This record gives sequence, C-alpha cells and structure tokens, in this order.
Amino acid sequence: MADYIEGKRPVLEALRSGMPIEEVFLSDNLERDTLVKDLLRKCKQRDVRVTEVSRTRMESLIAKAAPKAPAERQRKIAAQGVVAKAAPFPYVSLNEVIALADERTAACGRALIVICDHLTDTGNLGAIARSAECVGAAGLVIPNKRSAHVTAATYKSSAGAIAHLKVAEVPNIARALDQLKNAGFWVVAATEHAEPLLWETNMEGRIALVLGNEQSGVSDLVRKNCDLECRLPLEGDVASLNVAQAATAFMYEWLRQNHG
Amino acid sequence: MADYIEGKRPVLEALRSGMPIEEVFLSDNLERDTLVKDLLRKCKQRDVRVTEVSRTRMESLIAKAAPKAPAERQRKIAAQGVVAKAAPFPYVSLNEVIALADERTAACGRALIVICDHLTDTGNLGAIARSAECVGAAGLVIPNKRSAHVTAATYKSSAGAIAHLKVAEVPNIARALDQLKNAGFWVVAATEHAEPLLWETNMEGRIALVLGNEQSGVSDLVRKNCDLECRLPLEGDVASLNVAQAATAFMYEWLRQNHG
Repeated sequence: MADYIEGKRPVLEALRSGMPIEEVFLSDNLERDTLVKDLLRKCKQRDVRVTEVSRTRMESLIAKAAPKAPAERQRKIAAQGVVAKAAPFPYVSLNEVIALADERTAACGRALIVICDHLTDTGNLGAIARSAECVGAAGLVIPNKRSAHVTAATYKSSAGAIAHLKVAEVPNIARALDQLKNAGFWVVAATEHAEPLLWETNMEGRIALVLGNEQSGVSDLVRKNCDLECRLPLEGDVASLNVAQAATAFMYEWLRQNHG
Repeated sequence: MADYIEGKRPVLEALRSGMPIEEVFLSDNLERDTLVKDLLRKCKQRDVRVTEVSRTRMESLIAKAAPKAPAERQRKIAAQGVVAKAAPFPYVSLNEVIALADERTAACGRALIVICDHLTDTGNLGAIARSAECVGAAGLVIPNKRSAHVTAATYKSSAGAIAHLKVAEVPNIARALDQLKNAGFWVVAATEHAEPLLWETNMEGRIALVLGNEQSGVSDLVRKNCDLECRLPLEGDVASLNVAQAATAFMYEWLRQNHG
C-alpha cells in the first residue's frame, strides 16, 4: 500500500528528508503562501511531479491517506490542500543483507546486522538507522507485522541515513536468527535482564545485535534463540535509556572491539 | 522569567513528564472534553492548583506565554483555553556540581561532568541529560546565554531524568573549564576535528566532557581550553550522529574505562 503524507509542513519535511516521493497533489484553490512556494521549489529541485486537483479529488486522496481519521479532521487536512504519495520503501531480502555483510567481512574482518524485535516507534527506527549507518552496519532486519516500518518520521529521525541502509523485512525473527547463525553470525541480545555487561561480551567479527520493543524488550522466544546476551550498566537513580540511545552504545562497543 | 506552556496537549504532557508546574489556568468557558478531564485528574494527582479565568485574563496570559506569536496564533491558543505556569528550574552553581563529583570520586574513584557548549535544541539537552543520569554523571553545565535551557521539551526528551540531575548555569564556558581543571578534572572535547578516537583516549577518573553546538561543534575558544580532544569514528557513507547519540557513546566509553 502506498504511504500518503498530508499537510503543508509534513510534506515539505518529507521532501527535505530525502524520502522518495512519487507525486505531490495540490488543491486547485490553494493559496500560494511561503510554505507552499518552498514546497514547489523543493519539488522542482527533486524532480517530483506536482498535480493540481479539485477539492473533491483532494478529499478522496485524504480519505486514502488517513482512512481512520474522524471526518472533521479529514476536512481540516483537505483544507490544507497538500498530499504527497510516497514511493514504497525498497525493502530487501535477508539474503541481500547477509551478502553485503559478507563483503564487509572480506574487506575488514567484521560485520554488523541489527535486528529490531518489534519496535513500535518509527522515529526510534530512524535513530537506530542513523547510528547503524555511522558504525558501518550492513543493514537492519525488521518483522513484516506488528512493527514500526520505514515512514516519513523514519527518514526525518535518521537524517536521511535510512535511504543508504539495507533494510530486510522478514516474516519471523526467530527463523531469521537461525539463518544468521547458519551464515556464521554470533547473535547477541541487548537486554536489561542479562548478567554480563556489553564490554564483558565478545563482539568480535560477525555480530547480529538484537534490540527489543520499547516497552517489553526482546521477547522470550527471541531471547532463547540468541547465542549471548548482555546489558548496559545503569548507574543512575531513575532513568533508563531509550532504545535508540542504548543501540548507539552497543553498536559503538561492537566497533571498538573490531576496530583497527 | 516564568516559563508558560500553552495548549491542552502540551500542558498534559508537561504534567506527565514530572516538570514542576506552579499553576494551571483554564478558560471559564472551556468544554470539558476527555483531554481536559485527563489534565484535571493529573493536576489533582500532582497537587497542582487549577484556576478558572475569564477569556480576557486568558488572552493576557497567552500574550505573556507566547509574546512573539502572531495575533492570530495567540487567539487560536486562547481558544484552547489552557495555560500552565512552570516553576523555574532550580539551576545550581558549578561549585555544587563539583561538590557532588567529589562525593562520587570518594565513593567509586570516578566522576563525570558534561559541559554543553551552546546547544540550541532543548530536546537534545534532555536526551543528553537522560544518558548522563544513566551513567551516573554528577551533572551538566550550560551557558546562561545563547543556549538551550531546561524547558518542557527537555523534561519530555529526558523522560523526567533532568529532575534528578544537577544543572549549573555559568556565564562563561572557558572560565568554567579553568575552574574544573583547578578542581582536578581532565577536560576532554568531543569533536570530529580531533585525531585520536574516543577509545584511544584516557578517560579514567575525573572527566569533564565538552559537547558542542549542533551545527558548529565545540567552539575554537573552548577547544583551546581543553586538555584533550577525541572523536567517534564514522564508518558510513553519509551520516553523522546527532549530538545526543554521540554523547551517549562518549559517556559509556567513560564508564567502560572506569568500571569495576
């Protein structure tokens, strides 16, 4: 299903984030304010087709873009008069991520694949993607159901990095871990229930790092299928880290153990 | 100057984040919808005084809360009919942060103080506070001018951790670094212009970690006043880390070098 983004500001932000946009629809009675002018300039620059549509056609687009929104909200959005149709994100197969990891292993003796076990927040997915790109990870693996997928929010929070990272959608995380183990990866779960600390854990070579859901962490079924588990020490009185911050610490520890 | 938060949702979020709120003002003709009911329940739970005011008084409060907003936007906010007056954040002196660091050093031989050299984003300040609390830092130091301060956004992005962390406001960062050096801290700048990597840098003991502005990094003047500088390796093709993600990697490397 195509992803629709509605409203002047969200569409402008999506254009700026580098998210692939197929087409932008403008209501034919739309006032050309500064925001709309910026938006049209950005469309031209990115070679995105702009189509003027009637109010009626705009309303049917909004109904597609936000089918669950109450009628009043749909009318408000239609009054804004801007909808963008995003190109579907080009997910790859797990095999393709493993193939890139093989190239990285051949080149520098290390490879990292990050598995997101049912994240719910698309912004967290983007922040993880940004760090993953920074440490040179081969890619991300996400489940194809009950999980955050790549959206406009992901492009934004990844500062565009998501477009440069391979993301595999898989039907079953536990089976994906089996496939990774068969391909020579050590599967390491990041979980606060672990005994060893991350820097007491050997993360040399080919590592599949499993991150858990924001509320419940890595699921029991997935944990059972991991080779090792480790945790970040928490020395404060109250706080826990957000999953993307924790992911950054884990990924840089992987890089430290494998660097230079 | 008191900090005002306006609008149903922002006020409810501020109440939930644990931000200290002195008083909540409701317009006397406000419809008691679900959001307002949640908000009143939260006020009762947190023992926050709620005052009903006339439309005219509400408009003068909005003018105080958002003095730079255009008149049309001020009217829209007034129509929402909810304003909260935040209690001023209890900033401490640099001496107080150093005193806590001394206690930490006595207890476990290490102490970390994080200096934010003119951050602009209050959300980043909160995310840094969250990680700082997690590694057991003694506190944050921020400049009292041209810098992000503690706001409702900081409470939210810190997941409340900011309330448990000492934050010193200082008139001059370079002078604060002198004071920290005199108190026996090694001052380490986190900057992409450095040659050594973070894990090649000795961060044992008492460390003052300097983080830079989102666009321009640590300023030249401040860099000159640091004992050491180091950087995170970036192995990707496109991305750079956001300052809060980078801060998390630096702080956990400090903890790794000093742990157990």
